[in-house]
Amino acid sequence: MKQASPNDMMEMLRRYDTWVFDCDGTLWRGQALIEGVADALQLLRDLGKKVLFVTNNSTKSRKAFKVKFDQLQLPVDQAEIYSSSHSAAAYLQSIGFKKKAYVCGERGIMEELAAAGIAAVGGPDDNDRRLEGRPVEIDPEIGAVVCGADPGLSYFKVTYASLCLRHNPGCLFIATNTDSRGHFIEKQEWPGAGATVAAVQAVVGMEPIVTGKPSPFMLRDVCAAHATTPDRMIMVGDRLDTDIAWGHATGMATLLVLTGITGRDDLAAEWGRPGFQRPDYVMASFGDLMGISAAARAAA
Amino acid sequence: MKQASPNDMMEMLRRYDTWVFDCDGTLWRGQALIEGVADALQLLRDLGKKVLFVTNNSTKSRKAFKVKFDQLQLPVDQAEIYSSSHSAAAYLQSIGFKKKAYVCGERGIMEELAAAGIAAVGGPDDNDRRLEGRPVEIDPEIGAVVCGADPGLSYFKVTYASLCLRHNPGCLFIATNTDSRGHFIEKQEWPGAGATVAAVQAVVGMEPIVTGKPSPFMLRDVCAAHATTPDRMIMVGDRLDTDIAWGHATGMATLLVLTGITGRDDLAAEWGRPGFQRPDYVMASFGDLMGISAAARAAA
Repeated sequence: MKQASPNDMMEMLRRYDTWVFDCDGTLWRGQALIEGVADALQLLRDLGKKVLFVTNNSTKSRKAFKVKFDQLQLPVDQAEIYSSSHSAAAYLQSIGFKKKAYVCGERGIMEELAAAGIAAVGGPDDNDRRLEGRPVEIDPEIGAVVCGADPGLSYFKVTYASLCLRHNPGCLFIATNTDSRGHFIEKQEWPGAGATVAAVQAVVGMEPIVTGKPSPFMLRDVCAAHATTPDRMIMVGDRLDTDIAWGHATGMATLLVLTGITGRDDLAAEWGRPGFQRPDYVMASFGDLMGISAAARAAA
Repeated sequence: MKQASPNDMMEMLRRYDTWVFDCDGTLWRGQALIEGVADALQLLRDLGKKVLFVTNNSTKSRKAFKVKFDQLQLPVDQAEIYSSSHSAAAYLQSIGFKKKAYVCGERGIMEELAAAGIAAVGGPDDNDRRLEGRPVEIDPEIGAVVCGADPGLSYFKVTYASLCLRHNPGCLFIATNTDSRGHFIEKQEWPGAGATVAAVQAVVGMEPIVTGKPSPFMLRDVCAAHATTPDRMIMVGDRLDTDIAWGHATGMATLLVLTGITGRDDLAAEWGRPGFQRPDYVMASFGDLMGISAAARAAA
């Protein structure tokens, strides 16, 4: 395992015209921007690169992510943002889903479903609901359970979701993603959508349909909207099991950054393991791209 | 698949002198005793059989289960009852555990840990705790996380448990059991310990040590206390993946009853599948044993 040299960075810039970024752990941690990242993104834009942001964070809608980018003073167009909350709604829309969705997750999923014209119940509105020692009546109109990261995860919601899946015929089990943990705050990793999905899955014994990374559905959606193809794209992210796996599964090049979930030791432990799908490039931080800023601008 | 005939029932009575019963779904559902079961248990006692009760329900302590038996007017000695809450405490005691335990589960686990002299925190006392947008401080003295069925399952508890497991060196991950669902009320199946365990496991990526059925630890504990051996024992239960699997794994005979989780259709679907471990006997309800009551008493 070696980190990308200045030559490697110049090569990446020559080869790829669409740069796809993960957000948490790659651009920021919690509310704090990672050093150098804002300048490195601006460098890409100045060099004429297409820049897209694909996050498995399901807690916000695309619109709410735009606000976060604005607060961090990262220039972005809302159409450049893909969240797993959006992917779940886009998936249901793509199959002509007409029923109601029950959400085990945050407001972002509710907003994206609403934007796609899909009625949604549950979510944060159910955070304080409790079981009362008698059978729960479920809404027979619910045709999908959508699970994401849920700071309001509760026994009630897991129960309601599992009853919909077991008793409403054909009810779909959708996972925005299955990330184990996320940097919802800067200094600690808290449970991700994986916890919500695993709890429901353990009760119902069904496999979920995953719409976020590393699902190919997410890439199809991105490529269609931006008229690009995987061979021109490089995926930049901090997680092996979503970001890098997604790149490998879809034919994008991959750049792992060590500012998030995957640490240097984690990577070293995986590197020699048989069958390990190595990222094409590794950088300590994406901000390190600024080391070749002058050379890249001169070469452009 | 065929149900036990009167001859089969007589054979079971001849062969096995220790009868091990699951509780929820076998003896009762929620607060309701299953018809005929009280008389069938009395028949076994009258015939001089040893009768034991081994439940994966972790919500109660042995003492609290005794109260439940009393309320249902089922005669029982507390020493005949084995709960998965007890098994977790007995396991920690057996390895000389001296630190604190964090509980994602019900009062029963806290009580059993206390009875074993193990300090425990969390459990129902943490039901209303919420994350506050800043790092959670975990108690460095916590050396085990014990997960069971938890009607107070919350994001806070999953977070706290995962932080203990990831940051307290050597912290043990104990599951009382991994049942997907349980009849905590009569008319609906609600999430079991499997949901709690799966949520934490998804966050930390560790395998739990399971102390309840189908773990061999649970049987060792029972056999030692009652001076019996698996070849003299028959396990009566409603679940293939815990009760029947436990019997197969430990050398007990197995009798599946259809009054709980496993329905006639579920069983028919599994029966022909390659590798399916068939129960030795199947009865619609354990109460059906009363059909041979007179013959059995006459033969005794």
